[in-house]
Amino acid sequence: MASFDSTEHPHRRFNVLSGEWVLVSPHRSKRPWQGQQEEPEQDNRPAYDPTCYLCPGNSRVGGEQNPKYEDTFVFNNDFGALQVDVPTGGINEGGLLRAEAESGICRVICFSPRHDLTLPQMTVPAIRKVVDLWVQEFETLGARPDINYVQIFENKGQVMGCSNPHPHGQIWAQRTVPGEPAAEGVQQLAYFQEHGRTLLTDYLALELEKKERVVLENEHFVVLVPFWAVWPFETLVVSRRPVQDIIQLTSDERDALADILRRLTIRYDNLFNISFPYSAGLHQRPTDGQEHPEWHLHMHFYPPLLRSATVRKFMVGYEMLGDPQRDITPEFSADRLRGLSEVHYKEAGE
Amino acid sequence: MASFDSTEHPHRRFNVLSGEWVLVSPHRSKRPWQGQQEEPEQDNRPAYDPTCYLCPGNSRVGGEQNPKYEDTFVFNNDFGALQVDVPTGGINEGGLLRAEAESGICRVICFSPRHDLTLPQMTVPAIRKVVDLWVQEFETLGARPDINYVQIFENKGQVMGCSNPHPHGQIWAQRTVPGEPAAEGVQQLAYFQEHGRTLLTDYLALELEKKERVVLENEHFVVLVPFWAVWPFETLVVSRRPVQDIIQLTSDERDALADILRRLTIRYDNLFNISFPYSAGLHQRPTDGQEHPEWHLHMHFYPPLLRSATVRKFMVGYEMLGDPQRDITPEFSADRLRGLSEVHYKEAGE
Ligand SMILES: O=P(O)(O)O[C@H]1O[C@H](CO)[C@@H](O)[C@H](O)[C@H]1O
Ligand SMILES: O=P(O)(O)O[C@H]1O[C@H](CO)[C@@H](O)[C@H](O)[C@H]1O
Repeated sequence: MASFDSTEHPHRRFNVLSGEWVLVSPHRSKRPWQGQQEEPEQDNRPAYDPTCYLCPGNSRVGGEQNPKYEDTFVFNNDFGALQVDVPTGGINEGGLLRAEAESGICRVICFSPRHDLTLPQMTVPAIRKVVDLWVQEFETLGARPDINYVQIFENKGQVMGCSNPHPHGQIWAQRTVPGEPAAEGVQQLAYFQEHGRTLLTDYLALELEKKERVVLENEHFVVLVPFWAVWPFETLVVSRRPVQDIIQLTSDERDALADILRRLTIRYDNLFNISFPYSAGLHQRPTDGQEHPEWHLHMHFYPPLLRSATVRKFMVGYEMLGDPQRDITPEFSADRLRGLSEVHYKEAGE
Repeated sequence: MASFDSTEHPHRRFNVLSGEWVLVSPHRSKRPWQGQQEEPEQDNRPAYDPTCYLCPGNSRVGGEQNPKYEDTFVFNNDFGALQVDVPTGGINEGGLLRAEAESGICRVICFSPRHDLTLPQMTVPAIRKVVDLWVQEFETLGARPDINYVQIFENKGQVMGCSNPHPHGQIWAQRTVPGEPAAEGVQQLAYFQEHGRTLLTDYLALELEKKERVVLENEHFVVLVPFWAVWPFETLVVSRRPVQDIIQLTSDERDALADILRRLTIRYDNLFNISFPYSAGLHQRPTDGQEHPEWHLHMHFYPPLLRSATVRKFMVGYEMLGDPQRDITPEFSADRLRGLSEVHYKEAGE
């Protein structure tokens, strides 16, 4: 029998950052698809929409009026999943029924006053203003004694549950550390204690040496398809310097983050010539007052599409009950993304 | 300040079966929805479809012809994610890049020759034949030395990635134990070692005493919305007797499983008067030759819909990067499901 070949044979890969496995089935990418087709995002919006509750000057559901903001704008979510004033308490019956009150703050961040833009269509200085707001929010929220973790994220596209195409992201900040960053914390701490360097420092060095999963780089950040990627075109944005959070980024590094976000999202849009849907978010140290030298700032991009603008990957049956599964290899995806232009298809066509 | 009230205040619940947390936001169920609407499943199919690759007598993509089967029919998936003959081997670079070959078998099970039926529209004796086939497959696959775990599941509905409406399920059987059952194994073993009873024995007793999350029962099975349910109308089917796998079920218990599956799926269809989408599957002991007295057979139902036939729950941004989150409480969902008729809406209308 031939020897094991990861470009051909089914295998499992270990996510060293989260401690979980993913099943990879490289041979399966040719299977025909007769299932659900997604509707590509409607993508010729006006610069201002009088019915949009995020556009400058408009009213929100709660009755409040947005200012005539010119760059970014942040406010408390009118329907936040978390609330600040929650009585402490909980339930514990024999360890079988266990619950505890949770408090926190949900914020909404408008990236731009322009209803018709998305990150890849914004300028680097404009994205830099989003980065600055993230820094400011992380700092202010994280300084509160009742907030021990701050999750900054964006859901882009209807297929990712986004209910308003106006470019915006969210922040959920809360008392406890959620499962995903908690698991990453455990893995990073174990590595740091053993090697005295952050896990992502060594992982990044290895990937930069191999090159096959690297998508793009600038002076301060690298984008790669992680070895253990679950989603077809999942990527990881890693800072070269092992900083624990965005507050620690220098001004140059913030510019570099804006630059890399623009270039990555342009490539995504150019993959299928559509406004590319994804969920993305920063993972950073808990804001529990500890230093957390094991933590290494990074940003995950989880895009659902698989083969085209209309065929997505479904994480269903086996994935919900067993392990996540993917068809194309991370190396194949990195190669596709690497080959794409950094001129947005809408501008290239002009 | 008022004291903590789980019907009103945001809180986290602990999933004692998997060891994970879910964020519950009861106050949030009233938020308006302007996002994606699902298309309800087309639901007036012919009893036989000449273009369906699962109907009796038709040809499949691989060229093989289905027999003119009269009850159930099982075959190897023509595009399985797993393969039997995989060279052993793997990758390990500094613990950072880790992969290992995985082998296994993917099977497809047709529940009925009738293209137009689904489980809730089948008779109990017909569903019993599906249960019998599950038993037979679990036994045969599990007896193989190269198979240490057998995952039986069904993806129902386009929104759950199902590409063919012909009633069918799948089995993925493999060398290693995937993450979900592995985590449940750890939790169940710890409980069993401490109490000498299975975790689900005690959990079931507690739920039967409280009644608020129980949806329906028969002599051998109970359906409940687990205290830690993630999906809006998620349910757990638990056997009253602590059996480790379906092979151990008596003939009466197999009938009872068929009965409870029919009654549960009828209630699901009656919730929004549509063919209700879900992913569902059995969790059972690993087939690694050990006895696993800690394991307690159960079946998860994960349905995506939230408010209506067209509005689903999205597990995106925060859920992918933090923790799963739900809006309505499990108690509210159990109450809704409990109030529904067990006469299928299509028959009731006749
Ligand atoms: O095997 P199917 O029905 O073609 O595919 C479906 O179920 C599989 C197992 O849950 C998933 O991996 C696929 O993403 C999904 O589309
Ligand atoms: O807050 P939104 O945009 O209304 O809602 C969206 O993002 C949330 C956070 O990821 C999810 O909980 C919701 O299911 C999703 O629809």
